[in-house]
Formats: sequence, C-alpha cells, structure tokens
Amino acid sequence: MYTLEEIDRIVENCSKLQHVKREPSNLYDPIGYMMDIGGKRIRPKLCLLSYNLLSEDMGNSIIFPAMALEVFHEFTLIHDDIMDRSDTRRGNPTVYKKWNEEVAILSGDVMSILAYKYLSYAPQDILPKVINLFTETAMQVCEGQQYDMDFENLPFITMDDYLSMIGLKTAVLLACSTKMGALIGGAPIRVCDALYKFGYMLGIAFQITDDYLDTFGNEKVFGKKIGGDIMNNKKTWLLVETFRRCGSEQKLQLEKLMQLGEEERDLKIEAVRMFYEELGVKEAAEAEILAWHQKALDALSQADFAPWQTRNLEKFAESIIHREK
Amino acid sequence: MYTLEEIDRIVENCSKLQHVKREPSNLYDPIGYMMDIGGKRIRPKLCLLSYNLLSEDMGNSIIFPAMALEVFHEFTLIHDDIMDRSDTRRGNPTVYKKWNEEVAILSGDVMSILAYKYLSYAPQDILPKVINLFTETAMQVCEGQQYDMDFENLPFITMDDYLSMIGLKTAVLLACSTKMGALIGGAPIRVCDALYKFGYMLGIAFQITDDYLDTFGNEKVFGKKIGGDIMNNKKTWLLVETFRRCGSEQKLQLEKLMQLGEEERDLKIEAVRMFYEELGVKEAAEAEILAWHQKALDALSQADFAPWQTRNLEKFAESIIHREK
Repeated sequence: MYTLEEIDRIVENCSKLQHVKREPSNLYDPIGYMMDIGGKRIRPKLCLLSYNLLSEDMGNSIIFPAMALEVFHEFTLIHDDIMDRSDTRRGNPTVYKKWNEEVAILSGDVMSILAYKYLSYAPQDILPKVINLFTETAMQVCEGQQYDMDFENLPFITMDDYLSMIGLKTAVLLACSTKMGALIGGAPIRVCDALYKFGYMLGIAFQITDDYLDTFGNEKVFGKKIGGDIMNNKKTWLLVETFRRCGSEQKLQLEKLMQLGEEERDLKIEAVRMFYEELGVKEAAEAEILAWHQKALDALSQADFAPWQTRNLEKFAESIIHREK
Repeated sequence: MYTLEEIDRIVENCSKLQHVKREPSNLYDPIGYMMDIGGKRIRPKLCLLSYNLLSEDMGNSIIFPAMALEVFHEFTLIHDDIMDRSDTRRGNPTVYKKWNEEVAILSGDVMSILAYKYLSYAPQDILPKVINLFTETAMQVCEGQQYDMDFENLPFITMDDYLSMIGLKTAVLLACSTKMGALIGGAPIRVCDALYKFGYMLGIAFQITDDYLDTFGNEKVFGKKIGGDIMNNKKTWLLVETFRRCGSEQKLQLEKLMQLGEEERDLKIEAVRMFYEELGVKEAAEAEILAWHQKALDALSQADFAPWQTRNLEKFAESIIHREK
C-alpha cells in the first residue's frame, strides 16, 4: 500500500500540470495560478487511496483521472468566486479579482474541458463508466450551487433542504472520487457502490465541519477570518439547526442579529456564536459530524476490505474531518 | 440518403431536449430558452450529413453526439454574451440579460457538461476517439475566444492572426462536426481527416461570410441591424484586409472614423462601408469566400465519395455560405 506521504507526493507532482499548453497566456496562466494556490487536494487523494485498495499500479491511467477531479473542483471555485463576488481565496486574490471577470469565466470554462482530457486517460474498457459517473456528478455539483444561490433568497430552509444542497454541492464529488478510484481499479459493482457511499457520507461530514470551523475554528490555525458565514447570513448547518430549535421569540432575536452589518461585525459574530452555544447547537454539530463520519466508516466496511487495507483511507478521512483548518 | 428536410426534422426534434432534467428551474430553464431561440443548427446537421455518407442508421448513437455539438455551441454563446455584454441574440434577450449573470455562468457550465452526456451515446468502441476529438476542439474554441478578446486591445492585427483566431473560434467546431459524423459512421482515418479539412475550410468561409453580411447584408433579411461590427471596431476580415491595403494616409483616416461613437452611427457605418468599397475589399471578400468554399470542396473530394453521395452535404454547405442571414 502507498503511504499517505507517497500519495501526497504523487498528487503534488501532478498538480504542476506541466503538460498543459501555455498559449494564449491570458487563458492558461489563471489555471496555473489556481493550481499553485494549492489546497488540500482531497479529491485526487481519495481517488488514489480508493484505487490503491485494489491495485499498486500507479500509472497515468489512474493519476490523470484523479487529477481531473481536482481540475474540475478548481474550475467550480473560479466560477463560484465570480458568482459570490469573492475577492480572496486561501489568502490570495481570486482569479476574477487578479485578472478580470472575462478571464475568470473563460479560464474556468477551459478547466472544465481540461478535466475531461485528463479523464480520457482512464483504461478504455472502463472509460464509458468513468465519463458517465463524472458527468452525472458534475451536473449535480452545478445543481447544488444553484440551490445554494436560490436558498440565499429564502428567509430559512429545512435541514432536509440543507442536506440535499450540500449533498449535491459537495458530497457527490467526494463520492465520485472514491468510486472512480474503485472503478479504475477494477472493483466489482458492489465495492464501487460502497466506496461511493463512503465518499458521500464523508463529504457531508466534511461540509458540516467546514461550517463548524468557520464559526468555531481557531483563526490562527484556520488561515482565514472566523465568522465569514455569520456575516453573510450563510445557511450553514449551524444556522439551519438553530432555526430548527428556536422558539418564535428567539427566531425574532436571531433575525434581528442577522440584519447587522459589517460595522457591527464583532458584535454580530459574538452574539450569533452565543446563540449557537446556548441552544446546544455547537455540541450538536460536533455530534453530527461524528455521526456522519461513522456512517462513512460503516459504508466502507460494506466493501469488505481487511483493516490493514483500509487503514490509510480511514486515516485520511479522519484528517479531513477532525482538522482545524 | 436522407434529404436535407429529413435531417432538419431530426435535429429540430432533438433540440427540444425533452429528456433533460427540469430542476432546479433557474439552472435548466435558460438551457431550454437558448435551445428554443433556435439557430441554423449547422453543427449537428453537418455531423449527421457526414455520418450519412457512411450509414443510413440514424439512431441515438449518432443523433445525441450530433446534439452535443449544438449544446456545446450554445454554451459558448451564453458565456460569450456575458463577456461581450451583449443584450440580444437572434432578436431575443440574452440569458444574462433575461436572468442575470450568475444564472448565465452556471447554466452555461451545466450545458458544457451536458454536451459530454450526449457525447457518451456514441458507440463504445469509438467513444475514446470521439471524446478526444471533442475535447481538443472545445479547448481550441476557448483559445479562439481568448485571442478574439486579446485582439480587441490591439490597434490592428495581421491577416494570419485573423485566420488563426477564426480557425480556433469557429472553424474547428465545424471541422469537429464533420469528422465526428465520419468517426461514428466508421470511416477510415483518411476519410475522417478529409472531412475534418472540409469542415474547417467551410468554417473559415462561413465566418468571413458572417463578417461580410454584418456590413453588406440586407437588413430586412439579415434579421439584425447592419453595421454592428463596424460600430464595435471589430476585427473582421473586412477591417483586417482594409488595413492591409491602406496607405498611411488612409490608415489615419480609417482610425479617425473608428473613433466615432453611437451618436454618429449612420455616418460611421456609411463611411467605413465606402472605405471598404473604394479599396476593393467588398469584392475581395466575395472572392475570398468563394476561394475557401472551393478549398472545402477540394478537401471533400479527397474523401473519395461519389457525387450522388456528397450532393446533400455540398448543398448544405452552399446554403450556409451563400446566404443572406
């Protein structure tokens, strides 16, 4: 089995995208920029770890499709940053800010196509399945982003709405990552489906963790300002659960708090955090993350691998959930 | 052989995209809207006509990949309209104007992915080649759009620059359309390549015709206001050829004219048209279109089909070049 460090190295090496064209520069420079900004590279790593359950043969026919997931993910971030009017990502100017909107649209477009170029390195006999899985997933990610934008205009949403939305926006791509590794590794359907479920549950846990850290994370470790979601009145797990628990009196108070703006940033963040804590939502989030993590492990056990085989995958899953940034 | 009317009917029927999801509506409605606005559906028709040189069996394994070309093309138009800030297309509000920019970005994104969904209906044994051809083409189209945007900031470009740019932005997709039909029809490499060249030359002729009609077309027939390219100082074949022919005195006059704005629209259009006519550029454009058309026919003859076989394809090619709108 490959160690996590070896998997990291493979992915980092490939992330340099040295074989991608360079002209016209206004089109391809932003791609290099996005890839260089970095990130946890969760999706390709999950794909390779999943594949490694079945095979030791780490060639382009798995590495490139794994990178397709990362390239696709970065494409969604470039376009999301335009749609959200975000100026920074991972402490750096977003592509739309550093260049302009036209460049961000077009570079994103070419990245979504480049993902298919990488995907096409999958073994020919499995390529149709890989393309179909990826394409279904990619459409679902767009649907998730649309629901996320639609929900911004609603005063509140149910927990079912939230889980469906993050399922589409985030979880399916992690699920696709794990399933793709299994498909390319030649796993039987049952195992591929178990790995899909594992990735999906992990994705839900991951997103709720993201929501949690944005409010309760350690700013120095987290790498970005705490409270962004609160300031944006973003419908996170925390907010949705809070509305679920609120009495009508508390709902009014919360809605009043949500009206506060940038000039009362510290007050708003502190007050909403206290709301969450007083209603037991902080602990509930921690429990929820653990529960989804456990569901992920249960799904993985359905794939019938021995513990020594799944150890690295489980360790990696642990690292992306129980993290501080 | 299918008649042109039968090909039209197949394409129109499929353009309704009845099997595409409907939710969330903000994501999928714009797709239906774009497809309903219509268009000449050149790319799928070329694909089917090309395929029909080799096979009479018009099933989903050719019709859906043909539609992929149209869906991809419409995606590029949605995003181009954002980048160009165009309010109308084919006499209707653009998606970005009718909805908003976020919707236009995301609906375009899902269309580019939907294209791959349609593509995946190609016969499995030929699917890798089809995916690779389409992916290379799609990346080239993005490159062409980038060069087009880059050229806007240059005072002038050479004819080679222009031909390279329209080659990427327009011609490769027509070339991909004809080659794809041949690939799926099971043609040998030599025939696929000949059909690619045919489509490419046709694409160049088509774009120069587009440039020509925007200045010299009959407004009532053309369906949109004449002179848009002149008002935008767009680097059309006409303008590039004019700069090539101009002496330094004339260059200065032309540059002065290009400074004129909307308030002097009629004057500007009339004056630039006269410039083109006086320098013989109008006739030169007509000759250039004929020349590229002939190159297309020469390329097609390399495919070694009998005249009765290529008659419909040639007739269709004729109709998209010697047209009034």
